[in-house]
Amino acid sequence: MQRENLQAYYIPGTGPHISEYLPACWKTREFISGFTGSFGEVVITERNAILWTDSRYFIQAGEELAGSGFEMFKLRVADAKPFDDWLIENFPRGSRVGVYPHHISVNTHKNLLNKLSASGIELVLTPDLLDEVWEGRPKLPDNEVFELEKKYAGVSRVDKLDKISQIINQQGADIQVVAALDDLAWAFNLRGSDIEYNPVFIGYGVIGSDIKALFVEKKKLPVTLSEKMEREGIKIYGYDELTGFLKGLKDQKILIDPQLTNVAICEACSVNNKVVEKQSVPLALKAVKNNVELEGFREAMQKDGVALVEFLYWLRQNLGKEAITEYIVGKKLKQFRAAQEGFVGESFPPIVGYKSHGAIVHLSVDEASAFKIGPEGLLLFDSGGHYLHGTTDITRTIALGGLTGQQKRDFTLVLKGMIALSEAKFPYGTKGCHLDILARKALWSHGLNYGHGTGHGVGHFLSVHEGPMSIRQDYNEHPIVPGMVVSNEPGLYRTGEYGIRIENILLCIEKEDTGFGRFLGFETLTLCPIDTTAIDTKLLSRQEKNWVNNYHKVVRGKLKNLLSDELNLFLAGITKDVE
Amino acid sequence: MQRENLQAYYIPGTGPHISEYLPACWKTREFISGFTGSFGEVVITERNAILWTDSRYFIQAGEELAGSGFEMFKLRVADAKPFDDWLIENFPRGSRVGVYPHHISVNTHKNLLNKLSASGIELVLTPDLLDEVWEGRPKLPDNEVFELEKKYAGVSRVDKLDKISQIINQQGADIQVVAALDDLAWAFNLRGSDIEYNPVFIGYGVIGSDIKALFVEKKKLPVTLSEKMEREGIKIYGYDELTGFLKGLKDQKILIDPQLTNVAICEACSVNNKVVEKQSVPLALKAVKNNVELEGFREAMQKDGVALVEFLYWLRQNLGKEAITEYIVGKKLKQFRAAQEGFVGESFPPIVGYKSHGAIVHLSVDEASAFKIGPEGLLLFDSGGHYLHGTTDITRTIALGGLTGQQKRDFTLVLKGMIALSEAKFPYGTKGCHLDILARKALWSHGLNYGHGTGHGVGHFLSVHEGPMSIRQDYNEHPIVPGMVVSNEPGLYRTGEYGIRIENILLCIEKEDTGFGRFLGFETLTLCPIDTTAIDTKLLSRQEKNWVNNYHKVVRGKLKNLLSDELNLFLAGITKDVE
Repeated sequence: MQRENLQAYYIPGTGPHISEYLPACWKTREFISGFTGSFGEVVITERNAILWTDSRYFIQAGEELAGSGFEMFKLRVADAKPFDDWLIENFPRGSRVGVYPHHISVNTHKNLLNKLSASGIELVLTPDLLDEVWEGRPKLPDNEVFELEKKYAGVSRVDKLDKISQIINQQGADIQVVAALDDLAWAFNLRGSDIEYNPVFIGYGVIGSDIKALFVEKKKLPVTLSEKMEREGIKIYGYDELTGFLKGLKDQKILIDPQLTNVAICEACSVNNKVVEKQSVPLALKAVKNNVELEGFREAMQKDGVALVEFLYWLRQNLGKEAITEYIVGKKLKQFRAAQEGFVGESFPPIVGYKSHGAIVHLSVDEASAFKIGPEGLLLFDSGGHYLHGTTDITRTIALGGLTGQQKRDFTLVLKGMIALSEAKFPYGTKGCHLDILARKALWSHGLNYGHGTGHGVGHFLSVHEGPMSIRQDYNEHPIVPGMVVSNEPGLYRTGEYGIRIENILLCIEKEDTGFGRFLGFETLTLCPIDTTAIDTKLLSRQEKNWVNNYHKVVRGKLKNLLSDELNLFLAGITKDVE
Repeated sequence: MQRENLQAYYIPGTGPHISEYLPACWKTREFISGFTGSFGEVVITERNAILWTDSRYFIQAGEELAGSGFEMFKLRVADAKPFDDWLIENFPRGSRVGVYPHHISVNTHKNLLNKLSASGIELVLTPDLLDEVWEGRPKLPDNEVFELEKKYAGVSRVDKLDKISQIINQQGADIQVVAALDDLAWAFNLRGSDIEYNPVFIGYGVIGSDIKALFVEKKKLPVTLSEKMEREGIKIYGYDELTGFLKGLKDQKILIDPQLTNVAICEACSVNNKVVEKQSVPLALKAVKNNVELEGFREAMQKDGVALVEFLYWLRQNLGKEAITEYIVGKKLKQFRAAQEGFVGESFPPIVGYKSHGAIVHLSVDEASAFKIGPEGLLLFDSGGHYLHGTTDITRTIALGGLTGQQKRDFTLVLKGMIALSEAKFPYGTKGCHLDILARKALWSHGLNYGHGTGHGVGHFLSVHEGPMSIRQDYNEHPIVPGMVVSNEPGLYRTGEYGIRIENILLCIEKEDTGFGRFLGFETLTLCPIDTTAIDTKLLSRQEKNWVNNYHKVVRGKLKNLLSDELNLFLAGITKDVE
């Protein structure tokens, strides 16, 4: 920092692809601070080392930072002081703050630059200072890239790239740099395993009518696959060749998504070409699933449903007999899924919370800290799988013994919200922030609420959290349209007592076209029983009871041929009609 | 235009105070085009004269523009081309577009400047070209300004101005130019009658810790009032002295609201001072009513309720006997309100729509075009009054004879939405776009919808449409908080058949503070029966029936002492419990 004449160094906590999850080599924030959570920003000065994170991680960060010399500053609390405000307050005009341009998005950089420069602080692009002090820094992952066949993807790579190119042209650009790893994997019908729980590979794409190029470490591509792509007109370059390639272009209009693209790429684009800042074209396209992808989702949900019924049966048989912990529940969920054909891996680390652990929304337990579970109280489990057909994400909360009146009421209010969103019918153009209240209304009417969003997009054998749409209070300009796959996961968390969350995956579908416009709705994709013993049936309307009973009928019907007689009997027993 | 070397001249259709309603002297768009609607923009070029307006006015504008040489361009339709896009498409780089800086807001001007300059078109500030061709242009209204006593306003002028000054300081400014006429009237506890249906007067204010100044034609102020204000430390200047006054200030930080302030004022502020663009301080303050204002609202609602019961009784007695038209209904509504103590005037032109006229949302009928009403079908009437105590706005739709099943179903679905919003309970911070679906859900579930917003703020003896909050699908950052008074007016319109709207005014109130946060809700202020003969009771839940019956009990109770025995009997008869 002295060499670079910096008074502060900012580490945004993301990598070159601006991802939520990173391979070890880009975990600079974790390397310097020891904090392992998914969100945190660091500022280092001559006197201070500070980590900013939000309420999900206050406890974890407190423990992980202990003794490191790092302080924690809290975000999303009253009087929170974000790092930029802190910098402005603590450094005089003329100070210099450094950041590594490969690890900050164009938008974040622009906003920060405007804010700091208004206070006379200079934001400087620097080399990766951490690289110079990181001994034994891990290497870039070099796992093999594989093709997702058209029978799973629904559309061939060539057709997808042509469609993307057309839209890039319509957006007033010649080419797009595809920087987000899930956009890249989707656009090229490729998958990988470079990042835990995310079937993506490290690479970039450049797509346009005249140029189709993939930038990836060549050793990651099987020869047959690279030959096939070259025959399809796709040029293969090394991962490090992107910026040089971009600088070598002339007079192109290059579309980059400023939220998903790092500053170094943007600068390389600007040298001899014009930058067009727009939303990534594959981002919006991949959110609307095609029929093959949807059939795949349905198949994945059946497999997931079988695994979950097997799990519930195993739990029923063994609870109170052998020692079962939250950790073992997570392992068992994976084990039952792994037995299904087409299973590739878990779509995120399972969240298994028994009793008071259930109230910790972003719980992460290891073998040592896991609670032992017994025949009483509530058990929440949120888990999912990647299948070649699609990705799943499901939460159930089940009663392991008799529940209190409050527990049943809470469970039923969460369920009412889940049902209300499932049954929503809404005009074309409706956004997630309009629908969100449906999942909360029953809770609100009792003075209850939950602090997370209600729904996120789900990728097709891709990220379990996928944009651009969402169902939450925050305004999101992207409407929910047919073909989108989103989660529906209201919850309730009583700190120190228990947590409840019920999550199904929904598909947005057309309902009817009336003189008052196109009306849309949802089809529930998830196939897994809801614990009717946890319901306070007095709180359900006739219509809500019908929803539960119809849902269970569908679950039984769709899983019937995939379950043994014993498991069909078990399923029938736990899905008796609610009256 | 040739003298100014302009290729086009833009008339935004607003005046110096950026108001929805204008006195005749500022109706430049109406003068030049003949179009009298409340929204329209005009562009004049050497070859074209074009008016842009939205679906409310397509029919009216078509008729009013006939033979004028003006074309109509439609806004808010598929493939709409706003005037700025039209200019860019039709004029080469280097073209000059003129606008009069006194009749365009800072924000509109800034956006237009950015957009046009990106296409090489220059936006030029010019004199008021229309003034040079407008023979017999009306004069500025010079109606008397009067004081709204503290017993109505709740807070004295001195205390209000001090509070406003404090907040201006907290916002990082020394003074604010108050340009919006309702902000001005509220801040100074003054009212006027310069604009139809709006109890405001033409003027400006400058408010700060060291300066309190009112800019108004001096002849409009009674001597006793101006002397009183001068004793309170308020300087009185002529209306035209504002820009000179602002240019004469030195090194002040002047807050202006860029949505509510015209460019000429902003330029005058910039000469020797710094402009701070923020939301108008009185705008947010006046939206949260104080207890005296709320008591006034309740009193106004009682008076309005009495007038409406008298109207309903008159209609019952005379329908089918004497010739009654929509026009006469409007006159009668005014007449019954006018008999109430404290009545000042109507808060907007009454909308009275019988049968197919009810489906025209922004209906305006005159004596000649009014339908005669008879003992059948649906009658919609939307009307309101200004009382010294407060402003009212109410819509009822009543059955004048037997209804079809579809009519009853439609009425009941609208009512269900109105009830759902009335009963909402929601955490602090909830915005109008989150709540809007409550009023629409019952309609949406039947493939029905309405094309207007659900709720607007209502001023306290001020504009019947008041910001900054709203309840509609559009995102509005201002949450609904305790003390805000908003309308609740879902509807349904079947073109050529009938229209239904039911509108009550709600007050946002505290409900409870739980471990999950502060929860808010609404108290219904409007006191007028809902036509139970139009309800399909099969479609109402027990809870909804209870709401209707409880509401009618409150209406009877609050109006009892103000109605004759005969009218109490009548009211009891039409508000029998729904079972």
